Amino acid sequence: MPYDLANNDLRSWHEAVPSFRDGTDTPRAFLEHCLEIVAAREADIKAFVCMDIEAARVAADEAAARYREGRALSVLDGMPYGVKDLFKTADFATAIASELFEGGRDSHWLDSAHVYALRKGGAVLLGKTTLPELGSGDPPPTRNPYDLSRSPGASSSGSAAAVGAGMVPVATGSQGRGSILRPASFCGNWALKPTFGALHSGGLLWRSPAYSVMGVHGGSLEDCWAVARQIADIVGGDPGHPGLYGGADIGEGEKPARLALLETAGWERAEEQYKTKLLDFVQRLAGRGVDIVTRADDEAIEALERALAALPDYQPIIAAWEIKWPALPARDLGRDKINPRLVARFEEGERMTLDDYRGALARLEELRAAFAATRGLADGCLTLSSPAMPPVGMGTGDSVFGDPSSALGAPAWNLPLMEDRGLPMGVQLLGQPHRDFDLARIAKWMAGTGI
Amino acid sequence: MPYDLANNDLRSWHEAVPSFRDGTDTPRAFLEHCLEIVAAREADIKAFVCMDIEAARVAADEAAARYREGRALSVLDGMPYGVKDLFKTADFATAIASELFEGGRDSHWLDSAHVYALRKGGAVLLGKTTLPELGSGDPPPTRNPYDLSRSPGASSSGSAAAVGAGMVPVATGSQGRGSILRPASFCGNWALKPTFGALHSGGLLWRSPAYSVMGVHGGSLEDCWAVARQIADIVGGDPGHPGLYGGADIGEGEKPARLALLETAGWERAEEQYKTKLLDFVQRLAGRGVDIVTRADDEAIEALERALAALPDYQPIIAAWEIKWPALPARDLGRDKINPRLVARFEEGERMTLDDYRGALARLEELRAAFAATRGLADGCLTLSSPAMPPVGMGTGDSVFGDPSSALGAPAWNLPLMEDRGLPMGVQLLGQPHRDFDLARIAKWMAGTGI
Repeated sequence: MPYDLANNDLRSWHEAVPSFRDGTDTPRAFLEHCLEIVAAREADIKAFVCMDIEAARVAADEAAARYREGRALSVLDGMPYGVKDLFKTADFATAIASELFEGGRDSHWLDSAHVYALRKGGAVLLGKTTLPELGSGDPPPTRNPYDLSRSPGASSSGSAAAVGAGMVPVATGSQGRGSILRPASFCGNWALKPTFGALHSGGLLWRSPAYSVMGVHGGSLEDCWAVARQIADIVGGDPGHPGLYGGADIGEGEKPARLALLETAGWERAEEQYKTKLLDFVQRLAGRGVDIVTRADDEAIEALERALAALPDYQPIIAAWEIKWPALPARDLGRDKINPRLVARFEEGERMTLDDYRGALARLEELRAAFAATRGLADGCLTLSSPAMPPVGMGTGDSVFGDPSSALGAPAWNLPLMEDRGLPMGVQLLGQPHRDFDLARIAKWMAGTGI
Repeated sequence: MPYDLANNDLRSWHEAVPSFRDGTDTPRAFLEHCLEIVAAREADIKAFVCMDIEAARVAADEAAARYREGRALSVLDGMPYGVKDLFKTADFATAIASELFEGGRDSHWLDSAHVYALRKGGAVLLGKTTLPELGSGDPPPTRNPYDLSRSPGASSSGSAAAVGAGMVPVATGSQGRGSILRPASFCGNWALKPTFGALHSGGLLWRSPAYSVMGVHGGSLEDCWAVARQIADIVGGDPGHPGLYGGADIGEGEKPARLALLETAGWERAEEQYKTKLLDFVQRLAGRGVDIVTRADDEAIEALERALAALPDYQPIIAAWEIKWPALPARDLGRDKINPRLVARFEEGERMTLDDYRGALARLEELRAAFAATRGLADGCLTLSSPAMPPVGMGTGDSVFGDPSSALGAPAWNLPLMEDRGLPMGVQLLGQPHRDFDLARIAKWMAGTGI
């Protein structure tokens, strides 16, 4: 089932809502359509670690009744969705793909913050989606919906594959490096990796690096945004943060005056064909009157590129230090139940000192200052979402294009607006902190132009 | 057993360590002395929710063997301590004083970050200490060790009472308002509420407000500092933060050139006798040559005082918004298992909007800016730790003097250097962020002068 950019099979929720309101369709029928895809494809794709179909049917029927009575809880009432199994939920255990936590049910088994917010809006939790061991070890058995020999990416593997296969209109994920953007690119999802702290990540286990976020995969830009908006309205952002900015409706979008094309450390690792595709895409934007600027055009962008090129030198120090807890107590508890390569990575952090970490944090601050210095120069920045096509076999790809927006705390969208060799290929649109909504409007304009 | 300021019965660990090294004493004997106090007083004081005496004895013997062989793990090897039951540990369940979580054992039952760090140093976890329901509801049955009719304060009730009774040399706590400082004041503990983020709070459940910290109660300043240093050295501060600054040894302390005496919002609520005691204390400092400045002496301090006076207007908004998660999913799970007054408080947050919260955050930023503007004007600031003596009966006192240092993210020590009507009475010494160590040295000088 090769990818057809113009005619893919992703579920769209917001397009169906009017028919629930006028009674010509029901959330239950929408769910059953999703379940048909699950029945047809889940055995091959393996996007879910657990699922409760009967509970979902009951919840969808309850939503259908609310629409009939004109008292839907939100625009998401009845929407089936999946949650990455790195987040706690009241309905399911959370195993993080580790033997250490298998079978046990957390006694503090409350819904994660975003699950609570979506439940308040009537969304229907279908199940938990796959991820690599403890978020970063051996990949799950999940396969790319457009080529079963290939990876869906990681670590939000199952969420991306479930959305990409059309099993659900939305699934939630998390990103500390490239864990939302890359799988979204590989599976043809729209996805939002929000501004750091803009969506409440409460209930996220094994968070590292500290600038990790929770985010949203969706079959449409509108559904991603509606889910993000609902989360921020009900539970806000991470405590201490002002939460997601922007209205409820991204409307028809807005053409940007100027975009920056960034290389970042990923450009020199990128496949020629991927680079060519992105340059062609940018050329088409220029053809529509968008001014494109690069490091050659502006000293502040050149300084940012130099700072971004150095990120791979210290990003691993930050990540290794910050995973010490909870990784080291987990190792002490059951070293034999953790992949030895993962243990070795945890122990890199154990050998570091607080001064090593402070040195890396200081370089991160410099990078963020270089990014802040480009404020106002462009309405957003474009990069690839992955340097190469989804790998065959057990690899999950390279997070090099996710690292910049993660480390910058910048909002970033994956735009599923390209294809390559029969597979989806994403563009990353990132911007200054708190510009999530403005970027969504730019993305909507791009999608509308049909470029 | 009234309080004797000059001759109290607090346990001191660092003074005992040389005798473990030279073989004249052992950690096991130290533990047994602690257990004698536990046997004599715990039935009345009720500081612990659970305890594993046999496991502690085994661990103390192991430490004793390491001292004999000259391979002690740290200066804390063998030190018995308690952990507030708001932190997860591998050894004990974590019930947070709530029926909701009773008996269940978390399947993600890893040690909290600080417990891991102390375990690495050989410290011996004796048990979990009491707190009010879910950290802020009905108080536990714990009693003040110096007057059983009175409260030990809250929310780190058990940790303060255990240290104050001499059951353990150290116990850990957490503070979002006055949860470390006030009970330390009531029970005669030294205590550190560190700079926001300076000690890793991983494993802390039900954190609100977001500027909450983990901290340390101790029978001596040196033990508090050694514990804080061990935590920061092994696991650092909260992810994204540079962690606790300062050396291993506070030495003989250092006389400050100038201290600011702050009123804060608490002054007008304070008992006359408490105010008089503090003013006398400050007078004695002045008599030793410390320059004392107040709002009357400096415009920046006056501006800070005005900003601090307004904190009670928006602190509750911040706290109520930030407790929404996990409080609201907990309410949905078991409303009947939560005190109705607590539910009502949680529902204040539910009625707020993200804009209400942003407005409060903006005012908090203004307060922090006013504090930063006083940098360099004094080596530290003095306030009361509590506006009044420990209440009789079920009340736990007023957190009004804890709120300022909590909201400012400022380091603050409780100095058990006063007594009032046969009970301990603390002074709060707070300072600019990251000055934890400098404040410890000032506190040491004060204690050394015998004022």
